[in-house]
Amino acid sequence: MTDAPMTAQAASTATAGDILSRHLTAQAGAFLRALPLAVGEVGARPGTAAVVPAAGTADLLRTVRRIGGLLHTFGALFEQTWAQESRTELRWLLNLLALEPGYARRSARLLGALDSLSGTAPEGTGMLAGHAGAPKARALLDRQLTLARTRAHSTVLQELRSARLHALADRMTLLVGEAPLLEAAGGRAPVVLLPQVAAAFTALAATANQLPLQRAATPYGGDGLRRLGAVSPSAAALGQERPGARGAVDADSALAADDAPWCRLRILVKRARYALEVCGRPSSELDELDAVLGRHQDAADAAVTAATAARTPRITPATAYVLGVVHADQRLEVEAARYAFGRRWPDLPPGLDGWLEIPPADGWGHPPAPRTA
Amino acid sequence: MTDAPMTAQAASTATAGDILSRHLTAQAGAFLRALPLAVGEVGARPGTAAVVPAAGTADLLRTVRRIGGLLHTFGALFEQTWAQESRTELRWLLNLLALEPGYARRSARLLGALDSLSGTAPEGTGMLAGHAGAPKARALLDRQLTLARTRAHSTVLQELRSARLHALADRMTLLVGEAPLLEAAGGRAPVVLLPQVAAAFTALAATANQLPLQRAATPYGGDGLRRLGAVSPSAAALGQERPGARGAVDADSALAADDAPWCRLRILVKRARYALEVCGRPSSELDELDAVLGRHQDAADAAVTAATAARTPRITPATAYVLGVVHADQRLEVEAARYAFGRRWPDLPPGLDGWLEIPPADGWGHPPAPRTA
Repeated sequence: MTDAPMTAQAASTATAGDILSRHLTAQAGAFLRALPLAVGEVGARPGTAAVVPAAGTADLLRTVRRIGGLLHTFGALFEQTWAQESRTELRWLLNLLALEPGYARRSARLLGALDSLSGTAPEGTGMLAGHAGAPKARALLDRQLTLARTRAHSTVLQELRSARLHALADRMTLLVGEAPLLEAAGGRAPVVLLPQVAAAFTALAATANQLPLQRAATPYGGDGLRRLGAVSPSAAALGQERPGARGAVDADSALAADDAPWCRLRILVKRARYALEVCGRPSSELDELDAVLGRHQDAADAAVTAATAARTPRITPATAYVLGVVHADQRLEVEAARYAFGRRWPDLPPGLDGWLEIPPADGWGHPPAPRTA
Repeated sequence: MTDAPMTAQAASTATAGDILSRHLTAQAGAFLRALPLAVGEVGARPGTAAVVPAAGTADLLRTVRRIGGLLHTFGALFEQTWAQESRTELRWLLNLLALEPGYARRSARLLGALDSLSGTAPEGTGMLAGHAGAPKARALLDRQLTLARTRAHSTVLQELRSARLHALADRMTLLVGEAPLLEAAGGRAPVVLLPQVAAAFTALAATANQLPLQRAATPYGGDGLRRLGAVSPSAAALGQERPGARGAVDADSALAADDAPWCRLRILVKRARYALEVCGRPSSELDELDAVLGRHQDAADAAVTAATAARTPRITPATAYVLGVVHADQRLEVEAARYAFGRRWPDLPPGLDGWLEIPPADGWGHPPAPRTA
């Protein structure tokens, strides 16, 4: 992260391996600096993480995502078994670290939505203002999410002391300056790396084009609440797998299948984003799309929590009614995120094509500036 | 309705009184033709009207709205007491006739929404698909709305045999060819009528400009669910009137106060629309705005019904949860209608200004073509 920019001459003669090694060295260094901080942060917490992860955890999440993305997009240039194993271990750590902040974010989102929907501020009275079920639903959600966060915290605490994490740290230590590159990485950077970046964008575009983006870009089309599954043949497949299944499970399957391609899209946006960073061309457009799809994911997760809470036995009808409103509200947020994505997407491909076809004159070798997300 | 278009010369010399008399004669004739049909239709129904009122009732509603609108907009040109009394009696009949089709429309909207939200069609699986509460909520809504429609039917049946209706029919009979115009109506049509039309548009624009149209034209702003009352000081006033009032009443007041100016706007759009028809310049833009605000009204009314049904004693939590989703869904429809209005509105005033400042060369004296709405 602290490399000085290369001179134009050095950049023009850099090999793909030079670029990738420099990036991996910087990211592995960041990993090794952040890891003890993150472990300390988790150990020091009583079990309820803040919505924004503490600095060490945030840094660790950031570098884990970037190394994993790099190893995926440019995987053909690395020793295969090593790259595959590294990605598996990094994904494990990512899921582990993301667990607690994920619940914290979900809690903040749901309780915030409830407060907004039941609030009486002059500028934002909600449709549940003063409703008897609102405090009960709030307490129920808070209780269930606090429990989930506490459980997640225990899991994280335990795993952060595991041999598996030590092995991963060793793997990162070895990575500094010594990435196991294949011979193919010896070619000139643009010639070798650009096809990989292009492949990441092709995968992204292919997934995006299977989504009803034009419909999503038309507001209030009902995509979040009423028109699920139109784009996910997997939804029908899921339904067929258990023809006898009735009750709320049907809607859960339909919602999950409807959200799945958007979640997949988010991963592909992140990979494309990190690939451009490797090329020294971070893209604010991709950053924004990533943020929009993050909002989509958070709202979809929060909607599931609201629906699940509504199935808690022995709740009052008033509580259930409020949870129904909150569930619909979060599905509306899902729809709003898809709208935001659909509106931004069409502008993107031409801009990216330009970057990919014409190797940038001075873009190579500049490591991405330290980023905040 | 069947007058032949006037020649250009006749049109240019027509007085305001000529124009208004011709319109009132045509509309009063339509009233007298439609009334016995409507009475027969209501009498023949077992108590549950169709969503689209039968032909006689629809014709009667249409003509009652137009005569009432004309008497309001051009009221200064008529004998005051007569115009005021006529408007009161026409409003009474309008409210009476609109009652049963209103419930029928509300029932179709709510049951349709529930079917859509709980449906499993490949192109439109809903977020409540297979939910155990959906059939119960449907039965509850159907029962309550059928009861309301049956009661409304009895009221309408009774009033359609009343002396009050006979008196109104006599009033309409006298109106044919003999509108009690004041001397001021003897001036040239454009000179006399245009200021009245302009006043109708000024009132419309003033009310519209007090609404957050720019915010409404930005989709997913939360206006229907979370940000009520921002534009209605009356909402706060309502709240202050009963500082001790808690519970669902608070939200009901906020929702009613939030919707009220939009309902008022709809009346003003209709008046402007009918005023332009009198000038022989029906406006498809105003027709569309009227339709959009009609959708707003229907969704707002349906939302109230869903919220009220959710307060039925002894319903199951599953039923209440589904009604919460339906309530939010209808508030979303309210928001969508405001969005549609906000998007259309800004284009409108310049076009209307043009019409009002330059009297149309051949527009006067052409009675509006028979309309379907």
